[in-house]
Amino acid sequence: MTNVQSIPSPSIHSEDRAHEADHPTSLLAKFGIEQPLKLDCGIDLAPFQIAYQTYGELNADRSNAILICHALTLDQHVANVHPMTGKAGWWANMVGRGLPLDIDRYFIICANVIGGCMGSTGPASTNPATGKPWGLDFPVVTIPDMVRAQAMLLDRLGIDTLFCVVGGSMGGMQVLQWTVAYPERVFSAMPTACATRHSAQNIAFHELGRQAVMADPNWHQGRYAENGTLPHRGLAVARMAAHITYLSDAALHRKFGRRMQDRALPTFSFDADFQVESYLRYQGSSFVERFDANSYLYLTRAMDYFDIAGDHNGVLAQAFRGIKTRFCVVSFTSDWLFPTSESRALVHALNASSARVSFAEIETDRGHDAFLLDVPEFFDISRAFLESAGKARGLGSTGLGSTGG
Amino acid sequence: MTNVQSIPSPSIHSEDRAHEADHPTSLLAKFGIEQPLKLDCGIDLAPFQIAYQTYGELNADRSNAILICHALTLDQHVANVHPMTGKAGWWANMVGRGLPLDIDRYFIICANVIGGCMGSTGPASTNPATGKPWGLDFPVVTIPDMVRAQAMLLDRLGIDTLFCVVGGSMGGMQVLQWTVAYPERVFSAMPTACATRHSAQNIAFHELGRQAVMADPNWHQGRYAENGTLPHRGLAVARMAAHITYLSDAALHRKFGRRMQDRALPTFSFDADFQVESYLRYQGSSFVERFDANSYLYLTRAMDYFDIAGDHNGVLAQAFRGIKTRFCVVSFTSDWLFPTSESRALVHALNASSARVSFAEIETDRGHDAFLLDVPEFFDISRAFLESAGKARGLGSTGLGSTGG
Repeated sequence: MTNVQSIPSPSIHSEDRAHEADHPTSLLAKFGIEQPLKLDCGIDLAPFQIAYQTYGELNADRSNAILICHALTLDQHVANVHPMTGKAGWWANMVGRGLPLDIDRYFIICANVIGGCMGSTGPASTNPATGKPWGLDFPVVTIPDMVRAQAMLLDRLGIDTLFCVVGGSMGGMQVLQWTVAYPERVFSAMPTACATRHSAQNIAFHELGRQAVMADPNWHQGRYAENGTLPHRGLAVARMAAHITYLSDAALHRKFGRRMQDRALPTFSFDADFQVESYLRYQGSSFVERFDANSYLYLTRAMDYFDIAGDHNGVLAQAFRGIKTRFCVVSFTSDWLFPTSESRALVHALNASSARVSFAEIETDRGHDAFLLDVPEFFDISRAFLESAGKARGLGSTGLGSTGG
Repeated sequence: MTNVQSIPSPSIHSEDRAHEADHPTSLLAKFGIEQPLKLDCGIDLAPFQIAYQTYGELNADRSNAILICHALTLDQHVANVHPMTGKAGWWANMVGRGLPLDIDRYFIICANVIGGCMGSTGPASTNPATGKPWGLDFPVVTIPDMVRAQAMLLDRLGIDTLFCVVGGSMGGMQVLQWTVAYPERVFSAMPTACATRHSAQNIAFHELGRQAVMADPNWHQGRYAENGTLPHRGLAVARMAAHITYLSDAALHRKFGRRMQDRALPTFSFDADFQVESYLRYQGSSFVERFDANSYLYLTRAMDYFDIAGDHNGVLAQAFRGIKTRFCVVSFTSDWLFPTSESRALVHALNASSARVSFAEIETDRGHDAFLLDVPEFFDISRAFLESAGKARGLGSTGLGSTGG
């Protein structure tokens, strides 16, 4: 990823990309020192780059673009085989031909967040001042910073208005930030399984994860790359902690209960006797192979700082005053990381702002991760919302044959 | 703690002990190789010792004894100043003169569990075969093992029947095990904030904690004492994880919300910006000074293995068939570690067994830790239950002046 790579144009069509599905190479938007990213901490980050994927085709009116914002440990590989894990994209059940986010109708973009580790500039990138990885010298970024970088990417792609911004969890936070920071650029929005702020319990779990990483002597104050080490064990523990919060008690019970691993009787040892132990160990160890430990610190921190009301005199409704964006707020009843009560508070604030909002509180026992799973009701709601918003936007039934701006 | 110390008799009275309140020295019951503790794993543990505290006076009928079973990281220092922390006993608001567990009426015993680290034999004790600390060579113990050791202690003290067994969390599990293993020795029981089995989510959190300890290179496969190290950082992370589960989301929100630490604006760093971060760090670092890391592994494991129904063909009611013990089951509505639904399931099983049971589901937003806090309703219920059971037991109003056996 050197600076000589040409900036991709948005004219890459789904047909071309479909052939590359098994060999995805993310597109890169590079911003030089004359185009800094103005960060909330006061620092101008430059140069920087954004790695992204697109699916489908931008219509002539440039009115059918959907931005997907990814969650904490996910990335831009929404609907293609992941280049590192070899697994299907994380939203392959949602994004594709004939799926709710239909690539025959919409032009879909997903960009790795700033601070991430899948091609966008982050703490593992090279600090131009030293020629070494940034490490903890990388500035602390926020959800608004991520969204600001995405807006610069859209400018580059020549997309003024997004038909929709969609995302779950940390992605949902970005969706909300889009509607607050650039309301005129967002025709519709689907914040999912998220909240307008990180709660004390949310912060506590993140701090636990960070302390686990930092407790690993191989972390070396963030300079593990230069020390030829990786804080695998600490990061695995952090991942295990987070993973517990992604599943409901009921989902864990149904999946594993108290079932033993390959045996009927306890071993009276510290081996992974229970299936849930072995599952968690696997979640931890597989994660460290695909994710940068410092990025984990930065992205959790960004979520901790997120607080829309806090940025608006403590009054959430103020943030959305006069907004024209159509909202579909989605929550899952068994999500205890971002309880559905948080989404309800958001809906109340949107109502108080006279925003157009529908609220889908989906009954499921699958917990926070439900937004990534096969939950037919969620697919149906997404499809219907986009359909309805598409009509209002003047998108024809094929999406590409736009009938209006 | 050598083997020459004499076995204490139960004739030490509250008046004597009250004078020692600021200088508590736990009593020790030592069991030689001729009196092994028969463990569930098949091993006979011998010699071993149990460290315990008593408060109040055993009456002439030996009918006023209450056994308190302590939780995971607590110990026998229920109502006296803790010799290591210098803080008040963990149940000083519940146990004392005029308090619900009135030391003027009852003879109260609390023993450090087997596997613990406050004087009872555990992984930090010396392995007689090697002359070194047991470490991971210590056999894995279970909740039934803990209770079996307590029963041997009571035999030693000449106490045949307990007036009541009381305890919260892991202590509540021991209470239940007492009623299942020795129903004829338990006149009444108050299992509090507990469950009849560890759920998949419970196991997951414990496994997370164990992995955090074991990830610390200073753990040295449990041989840190011989290596002159302590796995402080891993144990602190484990404690942080556990501590989050002890508080409700609402309690954390009320206590800390998103309040910043000594400042109004974020530092854009990984310092403890939020009060909840600083609180968790303190919880972690203060814990490691008083608790043995290997004990933490063993006691969490014991809880994971606990499953009363599993030991009775999967039918909980079978475990309590024909039981005469009077039960008062106590749960707290905001406890998400041991949800009140688990207590309700226990009550249903007890009802199905025609046991005498009252159920107090206490409305509070303070989470699992409520059983340790000033919750007046809990005090009132405890007092009333003991009062009523005392009448049935024939204990006079002064407790000591028994009117029957």
